[in-house]
Amino acid sequence: MTDAAAPRPSHRPVDGTGPCTVGVDFGTLSGRAVVVRVRDGEELGFAVHPYTHGVIDTRLPDDGALLPPDWALQHPEDWRDVLRTAVPEALAASGVDPSQVIGIATDFTACTVLPALADGTPLSETALGHRPHAWPKLWKHHAAQGQADRINALAHERAEPWIGRYGGRISAEWQFAKALQLLEEDPEVYARTERWIEAADWIVWQLTGTESRNTCTAGYKGIHQDGAYPDPEYLAALHPEFADFARTRLDHPLSPPGTRVGGLSARAAAWTGLPEGIAVAAGNVDAHVTAPAAQAVENGRLLAIMGTSTCHVVNGPELAEVPGVCGVVRDGIVTGAYGYEAGQSAVGDVFAWWTRTALPPEYAEEAARTGEDPHTLLSRKAAGRPVGAHGLIALDWLGGNRSVLVDHRLSGVLIGLTLSTRPEDVYLALLEATAFGTRVIVEALEAGGVPVTEFVVAGGLKKNALLLQIYADVLRRPVSVAVSDQGPALGSALHAAVAAGAHPDVRAAARAMGRAEHAAHLPDPARADAYEALYAEYRLLHDRFGAGDDHQLHRLRALRDAALATGTGH
Amino acid sequence: MTDAAAPRPSHRPVDGTGPCTVGVDFGTLSGRAVVVRVRDGEELGFAVHPYTHGVIDTRLPDDGALLPPDWALQHPEDWRDVLRTAVPEALAASGVDPSQVIGIATDFTACTVLPALADGTPLSETALGHRPHAWPKLWKHHAAQGQADRINALAHERAEPWIGRYGGRISAEWQFAKALQLLEEDPEVYARTERWIEAADWIVWQLTGTESRNTCTAGYKGIHQDGAYPDPEYLAALHPEFADFARTRLDHPLSPPGTRVGGLSARAAAWTGLPEGIAVAAGNVDAHVTAPAAQAVENGRLLAIMGTSTCHVVNGPELAEVPGVCGVVRDGIVTGAYGYEAGQSAVGDVFAWWTRTALPPEYAEEAARTGEDPHTLLSRKAAGRPVGAHGLIALDWLGGNRSVLVDHRLSGVLIGLTLSTRPEDVYLALLEATAFGTRVIVEALEAGGVPVTEFVVAGGLKKNALLLQIYADVLRRPVSVAVSDQGPALGSALHAAVAAGAHPDVRAAARAMGRAEHAAHLPDPARADAYEALYAEYRLLHDRFGAGDDHQLHRLRALRDAALATGTGH
Repeated sequence: MTDAAAPRPSHRPVDGTGPCTVGVDFGTLSGRAVVVRVRDGEELGFAVHPYTHGVIDTRLPDDGALLPPDWALQHPEDWRDVLRTAVPEALAASGVDPSQVIGIATDFTACTVLPALADGTPLSETALGHRPHAWPKLWKHHAAQGQADRINALAHERAEPWIGRYGGRISAEWQFAKALQLLEEDPEVYARTERWIEAADWIVWQLTGTESRNTCTAGYKGIHQDGAYPDPEYLAALHPEFADFARTRLDHPLSPPGTRVGGLSARAAAWTGLPEGIAVAAGNVDAHVTAPAAQAVENGRLLAIMGTSTCHVVNGPELAEVPGVCGVVRDGIVTGAYGYEAGQSAVGDVFAWWTRTALPPEYAEEAARTGEDPHTLLSRKAAGRPVGAHGLIALDWLGGNRSVLVDHRLSGVLIGLTLSTRPEDVYLALLEATAFGTRVIVEALEAGGVPVTEFVVAGGLKKNALLLQIYADVLRRPVSVAVSDQGPALGSALHAAVAAGAHPDVRAAARAMGRAEHAAHLPDPARADAYEALYAEYRLLHDRFGAGDDHQLHRLRALRDAALATGTGH
Repeated sequence: MTDAAAPRPSHRPVDGTGPCTVGVDFGTLSGRAVVVRVRDGEELGFAVHPYTHGVIDTRLPDDGALLPPDWALQHPEDWRDVLRTAVPEALAASGVDPSQVIGIATDFTACTVLPALADGTPLSETALGHRPHAWPKLWKHHAAQGQADRINALAHERAEPWIGRYGGRISAEWQFAKALQLLEEDPEVYARTERWIEAADWIVWQLTGTESRNTCTAGYKGIHQDGAYPDPEYLAALHPEFADFARTRLDHPLSPPGTRVGGLSARAAAWTGLPEGIAVAAGNVDAHVTAPAAQAVENGRLLAIMGTSTCHVVNGPELAEVPGVCGVVRDGIVTGAYGYEAGQSAVGDVFAWWTRTALPPEYAEEAARTGEDPHTLLSRKAAGRPVGAHGLIALDWLGGNRSVLVDHRLSGVLIGLTLSTRPEDVYLALLEATAFGTRVIVEALEAGGVPVTEFVVAGGLKKNALLLQIYADVLRRPVSVAVSDQGPALGSALHAAVAAGAHPDVRAAARAMGRAEHAAHLPDPARADAYEALYAEYRLLHDRFGAGDDHQLHRLRALRDAALATGTGH
């Protein structure tokens, strides 16, 4: 989501409009900075810096070691470069005098994690730098699936209390799976690892010079629950030398969102052009930090960050274990509330798959003539058709199902095809399928004791009016839309304002600095009624293929994998 | 099928190579004639004549009455024109002296039916010609569904013995449904109808000057079973004035395939350039007459005529009621055997649908570069992949399911989609789905007591080597291929040879004049084994969506129809 639309630098002139903060969002391919007025959240300046190395998935830099399949690393210098370039550029674009800036905060992709020395030096910047395991592992490093499978199996076997907080399954992307892979595949680098730290916290360490850790990452991705990491006995059962992993390499006091964890160091002040000593807030995750930017932090306001995938976050007053949510963390999003996270593995990705697959030549020619992109063309052709007139139901599982089935071996389903089914019919059915999938999640939350009072959308897909109208109709509730196109960076700037004491807490800052167009899309009663019948069919299909004990989609995937490994061609 | 590939007129010189016959095949958009040497079936000359009026589905000719939706009529003059042009042209192309021609036979689309006077004059050529119901109704006239529904319901209610011979359901295309529609919607034209006759028999009447009726059409489409049409009491229950319909308008002695029903009349001799008095064979249906042309008349040899749809015909020695076959008729294909007919509603149509839907611009460009058609391009990309590597299973029901579920309200299903599913993956899954569907039919026949010893393919798709190899692998049996590209016309010529006494019966004529490349495609044991697992998944999906009591696809179709009638757009 953070690498979506191309940004336009702002050149708005400002003359002493009071205190400002800087928010910096670290994505997969670039970092971006925004300068924001503390009083009202006005975005005064913006800049983006594309990483030099980006995703390292073939070999280490400078013709270094080749990487195995499914690996994905990043270079810490890319991240420092964002501080050195994007921040001063955003500041310059804003016209704000640096002395007006009272704080800075950052957010990061979650599960991007690195081994470091006790002083924060990445192992990749030591003499071990020629070894792949010394490098930061990007969130989408997918080579620790075996470790994740064992972590999950053992947790269920031992009935570990935390596994229920994660829908019964932690991901191969998470830091425990990646750390266990490190230990098992390169024990020497593991032995030299003094700190195992999320990049979200490491970047803050670069700003302040001292280590800090945040409740959000630790809770959602670090298996920190009820004040503790998984116990040593459990860890020892995974691997004898893993017993002290959490105590020796993770443990550190956790700071809730918006906490001032230090002052800007002289070194970081020189990098950024910001005043030394200004407040630096605890690290955060790009999705979660977007909630205050979209005024979606009050209990019950569910924020859906909709891009290639969708991440849902919502706060509730009490702890509930909702089957199929990805995580519930106290103080995960705002202090004093339980933050729930759920997700849909593929959303925009599904629509893009179809436009890639089914844009026949005459449609492509039409798009070239009208100047529409494929999505706009298919949306226009699909719009205006009566609900259900395509006769189709799709299951939106082309990237697996994150919530509520937590099953990445599922796949997509499409039923009701006829010889007159057109590309735009399937496109519409796929839009609807993601809406139905969202409704399943909302219903699971509410059934699990987490009320959902408002549905707020951020992310690249918030501009798709047809899609959001479908969501309003399917969910039978108004859909609100985050105003900022830089949700994560704005959210970070808002955290910085709290850390600097300009607002008493994240909730208050959200009210002052966040922006959402509330109830931008209202459900149409007739269409909503028509969607009830289709949703019933979706549920039936969902349960038939996702929740039964037949597992046909698992078998197809296993047949596929076996065929690819050993199969016989035509 | 009869309007498939563009024909090349033959200019082979012939010098007195013995007796020949002429076969004429009447399709939906054109008619074609072939001159064939009786001794060995060599095709000596060929010509095609496109109809002038073709399918009349908007208004009657000469700015006549507008037609309601779903109507489809034809013009008898189009058919006579084939006799006047294609036959002499084929004869000229063959170089055969007309005196060498000893017989002529014809085949027709089934269920194309017309009201006529007792002398054979079509009512459309009387003073009633301004009324749509006076015209011949083409097989794909689909406006008698209501009548068909009542015919079926009443047959089951009264446990009529014949309904079981048709898989429990007769089609809206068949002559009883169309006749009942005529009676109910235009009683005056119905009252003037002295004969209600299949075009297959009417065209023979044009050749001989006397009425005849054939066992094939009467049995498969005219509900003639065990020597009788449905009884008057049943017909009266449909409509009081329908009671004497069969007795007054249909009844006539039936002639089995290859019977000489008369001599060529002087008028028809003048039209065709053929000698007056030569043998004219009983009428026949295009699909069924192809069986002898492909040497597929011995019991157990199943002929699949594969084009936009597939029609399966096979002979067996005994009467068996196989659930889901479209018809079983004694003497339906050859005298003395029970001919079974089954079908798949959409086959080539399904592949064409996908190439229409999912040929993305870069594929279209590649096809333009290589000169491949979309099918060839997708086949090439799909070929060579290990069996099951696409992870997909499809249900090939985009045109409903004719056999064995006999359910036109079913629709297509596709499961196992992922973000990396490519157009050629789905294309291959659709090819396979039709093969699985065929295996279901073959297994139903065998389980029902009709052995299948050979699988022979005719029709346009016989040239698709990838497809036929998949059929061989999925069916686990050799696939034979009809040699002639003019299967129906050749089959008719072969019937003519029997009618003329040149061969003792259709079986003998098939041996002498038919041609098939036997076992042209052999199953590959490893691929066949791999397909077993996929076929098991297909069966599961087939039964789940087609045979359970949930009927989800019916509900989706009903929702679609309701939406189109009354629905609310986006």
